[in-house]
Amino acid sequence: MLTRIDHVGIACRNLAEKIAFYESVFGLRLVSTEINEQQGVREAMLQVSASAAGMSCVQLLEPLGPDTPVGKFLARRGEGIHHVGYGVTDIAAALASIGAGGVRLLDTRPRHGSMGASVAFLHPKDAGGVLIELVQTPSDGD
Amino acid sequence: MLTRIDHVGIACRNLAEKIAFYESVFGLRLVSTEINEQQGVREAMLQVSASAAGMSCVQLLEPLGPDTPVGKFLARRGEGIHHVGYGVTDIAAALASIGAGGVRLLDTRPRHGSMGASVAFLHPKDAGGVLIELVQTPSDGD
Repeated sequence: MLTRIDHVGIACRNLAEKIAFYESVFGLRLVSTEINEQQGVREAMLQVSASAAGMSCVQLLEPLGPDTPVGKFLARRGEGIHHVGYGVTDIAAALASIGAGGVRLLDTRPRHGSMGASVAFLHPKDAGGVLIELVQTPSDGD
Repeated sequence: MLTRIDHVGIACRNLAEKIAFYESVFGLRLVSTEINEQQGVREAMLQVSASAAGMSCVQLLEPLGPDTPVGKFLARRGEGIHHVGYGVTDIAAALASIGAGGVRLLDTRPRHGSMGASVAFLHPKDAGGVLIELVQTPSDGD
């Protein structure tokens, strides 16, 4: 069902500073930056690798305000890993299968994610404390 | 410098239970289980994907006791994502470069990791709150 680790999502206070960090220390390449108003974040994707299964990225997340999910995460836990995103080829089928397996879905229907992807989050209480995002990119269905 | 997301390391209280969860809900394949006395963990690797750059895995970590690093993490934060591991082809060169970039190294020399890999951790305070592990597998130098 899972095709790759699509990204590791990292909460930070200053996006530009962290982009510069990953570029200079690890030589990662900035692939996109965008604002997702629905999720209340300014975000950046930096490519770690690419294969036939798609890209694997570091995703940096800066909250648009303190009352957003990532803003609350920063207040509670500080900067650090926020979630992990896994690639899937058919997000609707994956959600149906995972839901049938007893994991509560934070998104029962996919919504808009980074770089035109369809994404959905699973409930961390049903996944060992891990916030898991499923990601179907525009090329995943090919 | 980084060749792939080698693994996402997840702290858990019951390894067998979490292996069963990732196998049944996500269809992941268990690749190895081992005990790392030096790091104080019982661990399991479950494959998400494989490419020319190597495998990407979920790594599950159950502490051998409360006074281990993962035991203390569980007491402080509960179950969840503990660290992220990135593949490198030359871990000694990577450590030299990263150290020169001003990031403190928790391991200045590589030590024994999962499945015969050489690994080293970077200081999370110098990496935006993220515990980063570098991983050179036996096939990475090929």
